[in-house]
Amino acid sequence: MSFNTFGRVFRFSTWGESHGPAIGAVVDGCPPGLPLSEADIQPFLDKRKPGTSKFTTQRREPDEVRILSGVFEGRTTGTPISLMIENTDQRSKDYSDVAKAYRPGHADYAYDAKYGFRDYRGGGRSSARETASRVAAGAVARLVLPDVDIFAYVSEIGDDAIDYARFDAAEIGNNPFFCPDREAAQRWEQLVDDARKDGSSLGAVVECVASGVPAGWGAPLYAKLDSELAAAMMSINAVKGVEIGDGFAAARLRGEENADPMRPGEDGPAFLANHAGGIAGGISTGQPVKLRVAFKPTSSILIPVETVTREGEASDIITKGRHDPCVGIRGVPVVEAMMALVLADQKLLHRAQCGSV
Amino acid sequence: MSFNTFGRVFRFSTWGESHGPAIGAVVDGCPPGLPLSEADIQPFLDKRKPGTSKFTTQRREPDEVRILSGVFEGRTTGTPISLMIENTDQRSKDYSDVAKAYRPGHADYAYDAKYGFRDYRGGGRSSARETASRVAAGAVARLVLPDVDIFAYVSEIGDDAIDYARFDAAEIGNNPFFCPDREAAQRWEQLVDDARKDGSSLGAVVECVASGVPAGWGAPLYAKLDSELAAAMMSINAVKGVEIGDGFAAARLRGEENADPMRPGEDGPAFLANHAGGIAGGISTGQPVKLRVAFKPTSSILIPVETVTREGEASDIITKGRHDPCVGIRGVPVVEAMMALVLADQKLLHRAQCGSV
Amino acid sequence: MSFNTFGRVFRFSTWGESHGPAIGAVVDGCPPGLPLSEADIQPFLDKRKPGTSKFTTQRREPDEVRILSGVFEGRTTGTPISLMIENTDQRSKDYSDVAKAYRPGHADYAYDAKYGFRDYRGGGRSSARETASRVAAGAVARLVLPDVDIFAYVSEIGDDAIDYARFDAAEIGNNPFFCPDREAAQRWEQLVDDARKDGSSLGAVVECVASGVPAGWGAPLYAKLDSELAAAMMSINAVKGVEIGDGFAAARLRGEENADPMRPGEDGPAFLANHAGGIAGGISTGQPVKLRVAFKPTSSILIPVETVTREGEASDIITKGRHDPCVGIRGVPVVEAMMALVLADQKLLHRAQCGSV
Amino acid sequence: MSFNTFGRVFRFSTWGESHGPAIGAVVDGCPPGLPLSEADIQPFLDKRKPGTSKFTTQRREPDEVRILSGVFEGRTTGTPISLMIENTDQRSKDYSDVAKAYRPGHADYAYDAKYGFRDYRGGGRSSARETASRVAAGAVARLVLPDVDIFAYVSEIGDDAIDYARFDAAEIGNNPFFCPDREAAQRWEQLVDDARKDGSSLGAVVECVASGVPAGWGAPLYAKLDSELAAAMMSINAVKGVEIGDGFAAARLRGEENADPMRPGEDGPAFLANHAGGIAGGISTGQPVKLRVAFKPTSSILIPVETVTREGEASDIITKGRHDPCVGIRGVPVVEAMMALVLADQKLLHRAQCGSV
Repeated sequence: MSFNTFGRVFRFSTWGESHGPAIGAVVDGCPPGLPLSEADIQPFLDKRKPGTSKFTTQRREPDEVRILSGVFEGRTTGTPISLMIENTDQRSKDYSDVAKAYRPGHADYAYDAKYGFRDYRGGGRSSARETASRVAAGAVARLVLPDVDIFAYVSEIGDDAIDYARFDAAEIGNNPFFCPDREAAQRWEQLVDDARKDGSSLGAVVECVASGVPAGWGAPLYAKLDSELAAAMMSINAVKGVEIGDGFAAARLRGEENADPMRPGEDGPAFLANHAGGIAGGISTGQPVKLRVAFKPTSSILIPVETVTREGEASDIITKGRHDPCVGIRGVPVVEAMMALVLADQKLLHRAQCGSV
Repeated sequence: MSFNTFGRVFRFSTWGESHGPAIGAVVDGCPPGLPLSEADIQPFLDKRKPGTSKFTTQRREPDEVRILSGVFEGRTTGTPISLMIENTDQRSKDYSDVAKAYRPGHADYAYDAKYGFRDYRGGGRSSARETASRVAAGAVARLVLPDVDIFAYVSEIGDDAIDYARFDAAEIGNNPFFCPDREAAQRWEQLVDDARKDGSSLGAVVECVASGVPAGWGAPLYAKLDSELAAAMMSINAVKGVEIGDGFAAARLRGEENADPMRPGEDGPAFLANHAGGIAGGISTGQPVKLRVAFKPTSSILIPVETVTREGEASDIITKGRHDPCVGIRGVPVVEAMMALVLADQKLLHRAQCGSV
Repeated sequence: MSFNTFGRVFRFSTWGESHGPAIGAVVDGCPPGLPLSEADIQPFLDKRKPGTSKFTTQRREPDEVRILSGVFEGRTTGTPISLMIENTDQRSKDYSDVAKAYRPGHADYAYDAKYGFRDYRGGGRSSARETASRVAAGAVARLVLPDVDIFAYVSEIGDDAIDYARFDAAEIGNNPFFCPDREAAQRWEQLVDDARKDGSSLGAVVECVASGVPAGWGAPLYAKLDSELAAAMMSINAVKGVEIGDGFAAARLRGEENADPMRPGEDGPAFLANHAGGIAGGISTGQPVKLRVAFKPTSSILIPVETVTREGEASDIITKGRHDPCVGIRGVPVVEAMMALVLADQKLLHRAQCGSV
Repeated sequence: MSFNTFGRVFRFSTWGESHGPAIGAVVDGCPPGLPLSEADIQPFLDKRKPGTSKFTTQRREPDEVRILSGVFEGRTTGTPISLMIENTDQRSKDYSDVAKAYRPGHADYAYDAKYGFRDYRGGGRSSARETASRVAAGAVARLVLPDVDIFAYVSEIGDDAIDYARFDAAEIGNNPFFCPDREAAQRWEQLVDDARKDGSSLGAVVECVASGVPAGWGAPLYAKLDSELAAAMMSINAVKGVEIGDGFAAARLRGEENADPMRPGEDGPAFLANHAGGIAGGISTGQPVKLRVAFKPTSSILIPVETVTREGEASDIITKGRHDPCVGIRGVPVVEAMMALVLADQKLLHRAQCGSV
C-alpha cells in the first residue's frame, strides 16, 4: 500500500507529472488470458480527453496509450501491464508566476510545505492530468467485470441540478456535459460559458451507478466496499465529498423510511428500495451500487486572488492558461474508472477468501 | 492491507463479535517510549459507553480495556499493543427471529451472501460494538499527536441542525448529544425521545475538527490525507457520506468564492478562509482539518419492515432489544478516534519520506 | 504489510512478550465455513510445548489456546480469528543481570539501539515464546490446505547429520528430536545432553517438505513462493540460512545435473528429479516443496561471554535460567507452521488472480 | 504488497518482459530533494550489462535508462520515479521449440500451469532481463544511503572457491568475475570457458557486505532486516539459498563459538566477531551486514534434457541462443541493488516509527 498505488489484489500504480515526458500506470494482479489491446483503452481516454468542446480545457493532446508489457498475442499474461501516455502538449509557457507564488486552492503551498520544493509546471504531480492514467487502468479493470455495467453522469453544475423526472441515460452521450437531462444540458451551455467568460469556474456533482454487481463483494471491516469507494473517489483531484446511496439525505430520514424492504424475488431477495446504494455492512447487496461525488470549482481562475509568494510576501495571483471552467465534467470518466478499479479488486478479493477450499 | 487492518505505518487491526467472549485491537507501529496505561484509554471508552442516557442503547457494559502487550514499565516498547475488552453483557436473548430472517438495512443478508452464514447474535462482526476497539486504538494514536487537538460534535439530528451562531465548544460535554448548541440540545431531547418511543430511529451529522496539524501531512496520490479520512469515516457503521471542508456545498460555489486566500502570517501563510477543510492536493495546509460525516438512522427499529427469510419466504421483522435511537450520537468518539488514527499514521509516514537523508 | 503481520490475503498478526500476561495471534482472511475449535490447534502447540524432555527448556506452560472470535457454531465465519495463549509461568526471577548488560548473540543490544529501551524479561518480544502464536496460526492455515501434507524434521545437530539411507518418516515422532534416522536420534541424546551439561548449546538444520501442492502457486516476481518462504523462515528466531531444494549444493552442480527432467505423466509432466525443491520461477511445479533451515545455537548459555553494560562498561555475562540446549528442535513445528501459513496465503492469492473471470 | 512491488515505505514495482518493447521500474516513496539524473543510474546498469565478456551472454543491449517522472531540475520531487529501459536487441529468433516444449529448470511449465499460457520469447517475464529494472531502482535507493557502502563479489564458481587469505577488494573490478581473489579469477577463466564450450553452465555463490549501517534498522517480527533480505535475495532469478552471517555454518558451531562478544568501543559496543552478519533479533547491530547467496547453474544449456511438450509428449530440448554460462556473475550488481533497496526501505521505516514524537 504505497503512496501511489491503489488496490489490494488488482492493483494499479500511477506515475508522471503534467509537464514531464509522459505519464503512466502499472496494473498488477490482472487475471491472465483476457483479450486486451490499445483499442480497448483508447475510447475511455478519448472520453476524458481535453479540448473536445469549449467547456473543457483547450490543452490538446491525443492521449494515445501504449501497452508496454503484460500482453502477449493479444491477451493479458498475468504479469504487470505497463501503460504509457506521452505528454505532447507541454507548451513552453511562462510559469514564473506560479513558481514564485502559491495559487490558493491549489496544492502549491502544500507540496512546498511537504517536499521542500515542487515541479510547478502545470501543477506537476498534483495536476488532474494524472487522471488519464486512472482512466487507462480503469479500462483494464473493466475486463474483469464483464457482467457489470458502470456509468456516470453530471447531475448538478453550480447550483443547477437535473430533474430526475427527465432522466434519460441515452442523453448522457449527446451533450458535452455527460448530462442525462436534455433541458439541464441546454441551460448548462449558458451557465458554463458565462463562467468561462468571467474567468471563473463552477463546481459539479457526478453520480455513478454500477449494476450487475452480485451480492457479496466487499471485505469488512477495513476493506468495506463503501470505504474503498470513498477512498477512491476522494483521491480524485478537486473532489470534496462522497455519498453512498442517499448519503447525507439518509441522515434526515427515519429508520423506517431509510430501510430497504425486501420481498422474495426470482434470484434471491428483491429489494423494494435502494436508499443504501447497494451496500450494507460494507458488502454489496446485489442492488445497483450508487454514489455521488462533489467536485469543487477549479482553483485555476482568471480572477485575482490574494496570496503569498514563496518568500512570504503578499501578492495577487491569477492562473493563466487553458483551464476547465468546470472540472467535474471531465471527472465523469475518472469516476467511472475508479468505480471499475475498486470493483475489480473487490471481486478478486472476494473469490480469494470465499471460494471453496 | 488486510481486511481488518487500517493504516500504513501506524496500524491497527480489530477483532471480535458483538456476543463473543471479547473484542480487541492490536496497534502496531506505535513509537516506543510513550507513557501509556489503561487509564489513558478508559476515558475515551467511557465517552462511547452505552447506557449512559436514555438516548443511547441500554446495553450495559463497563467496557474495561486491558493492555496485554507492548507496554513495559508504563511506556510503549515499539512492539504490538494488544488491547482487549471483555463482553460482559451477552444477554442470552432470543435471536431466533434474526437468525431466520434478514433485517433490512442491516448487514444480515450481505453477510449471508458473502460468507454463506453469519453469527447472527447482535449483528456479530457487523455490530457497532466493534467501534469500541477503534476508540481504544484511537486513544493510543493520540499519544503520537501531542500537539494536535481533535474534537467532534453532532451538528444535526434528523433534519434539525444546530445554529452555528450559537456554537460553543464548551457545551459539547454538557449534554448527552455532544451538541455545541445549547438550544439545539434542548430540542433534541424531545426529538430523540419521541423517536425512541415510536420505536423509530434518527440519522445525524457529526463534524470533526483537528487543529494543530502542521502543513505537509498526507501522501499523494493514493494515500492523500482526505482519501484516508474518507476511507476511515466510511468504514464506521451506519456512515453514508463524508465531506471534507465545505464538501458538497463547495460544488455550488464559484472558483473565486471557494478559494482560500492567503496573506503573510507569522509562521507561514495565514489563510483568510478554510473552504478546503485544511487539505489541498491531499496534503494538510496547516489550517484545521475539518470534515462532516452522515450517519443513517439505525435499521434496528420496532416498526415492522417487509423482509424475506433465509429460506426465501416473505416475512415482516422488527428488531427487538436495546438499541440506540440515534447511532450518530455515540459515533462522536468513534469519529474522533478515526481522525486520530489517520493523523498518527500520516505523521509517521510523512517523517519516513520527508525527513532529511 | 505492517511490522507484525505476515501474509497478503490469508494474514496473521502476532502480539505479546515472553513475560506479559499473554501472547496471541489474529488470523485474518481465513475462508468461512471451515470447522475449527481449540482442539484443532492444541496438538500443534503441544508438539512445540516446552518442558517435554530434558532436551528442551524446562519452562513449563500448558500453552492452552483460546479462540476469542471468528468462529460461530464450530465454523469459521470469515472474520478475524483471535487466538490467545496465557503466559502462566512468568517466574519472578531476577532479571537484573540482563537488564544491565547485553547478552551477545541476543537481540538485547539491537532492541535498545532501536527503541531506546526494552522489556528485558525473558527476551520480551524477541523471545522464541512468540513462535507459539505462529504455531497456533499455522494450525488454522492447515484448514485451507486439506490436500497438502506438511512435515518437518531435524536433519542435523551440531555437525552430526542424519543418514538419508536410514530415513524413516515414521521415526520422526518416536524421539524427542523429530529425527527420521533412529541411529542419529540415539547419538543425539548424548550429544545434546553433553552440551546441556556443559552449559553450552548446539545448532541444527531443519528440513521441511510439503507434498500435495499443485502446480501454479506463487506470485512472481515479488511474491514468489520461494521468496515468501525465505522471508517466513528467516523471521523465525535463531534462523540464519534458508535453502530451497538443493540450495547451496545446486551452486556446485552443472546445468545438466541440476535440471529436473520431465517425462509424460498421468496428470501432467512427471519429474525425474527435484533439485529445484518444487519451485521454478517462483511458482510451484507440482513436485513436493522442499526447504532447509539453519538454526544457530542459542546464545543463552552458562558459559561466560564478554560483553558491555548499558552504561558501556566491560562485563562478562552468562544467561541463567531454563534454556533449550538446541533451539532447532522446537523449531520443527514452527517451520511447519510457517510453511502452512505461506502456502495458505499463496493458494488464496492464486485463485484471486487466476480464477476464471 | 502486490505481486510485482517490493518494499514498505521506499517501494519499487517492476514491469516488462524480455522481448517486449521495454522494461522498467517505478520507485515510490523516495525522499524529495536528492540529486538524481540518468548518469547516477547508468554505471550500475553498465556493470550488469550483458555482452561485456565471453563469460556472459552475448545479447547486446545498451541498457540505457530514461527517467520519465519524479525528478525536477535535477532533484527528486518525492513523487514516483519512473525508470524505463528499452529492449533494443529483440532478435527475431525462432522460439518455436520453446513455445512447444518446457525447458526443465526454467519457469516454462510453472507459468503455463499458473496462467494457462505464457510469453515464451526469451523467458518473458521470468527472464533475468527483469533484473536490470532492479539495478536501476537500486541506484535510486543508494541516494538514501549516503553513509552506507555496499559491495558484492563472487566467492565461488562451480566447486571452486576463493581463498579468503587472498581476499583483496581492489581486485573485484579487475576481472570479469567480480572476484576478490586474483588467483581464483585466473582459474575461473578456464573453468567458465570450458563450461561454455561444453554448452553447460555453472553455479556460483555471491557474497555481499554493507558497511556503515547503524544499529537499529529492521522491524521485528515480520519485517526483520534478515527476513526482508532473504525475501529480496530469493526473488532473484536462479537463487536457491540465502545465508546471513555464518548461515548454515553457524548451525555447526557451539553457542560460545557463535556468540559475537562485545567490548566497550568509542561509539557504542565494539564487537569482537561477526558470526551474526550484523543482525540480531532482526535488527542491525552496527556491524557490517553480511550475506551469501547461492545461484544455481542456468538451465539454458546446449546439452539435451528430457522434457515434455505442451501437448504432453516426450521430447528432448536444448536452449539455443545467447546465454550466460554462469548467471551468478551478473548476479553481483543485482544482489547489491537488492541490498540497497532493502536498506533504504528499512532506514525510512525505522525513522517513521522511532523518531521522537
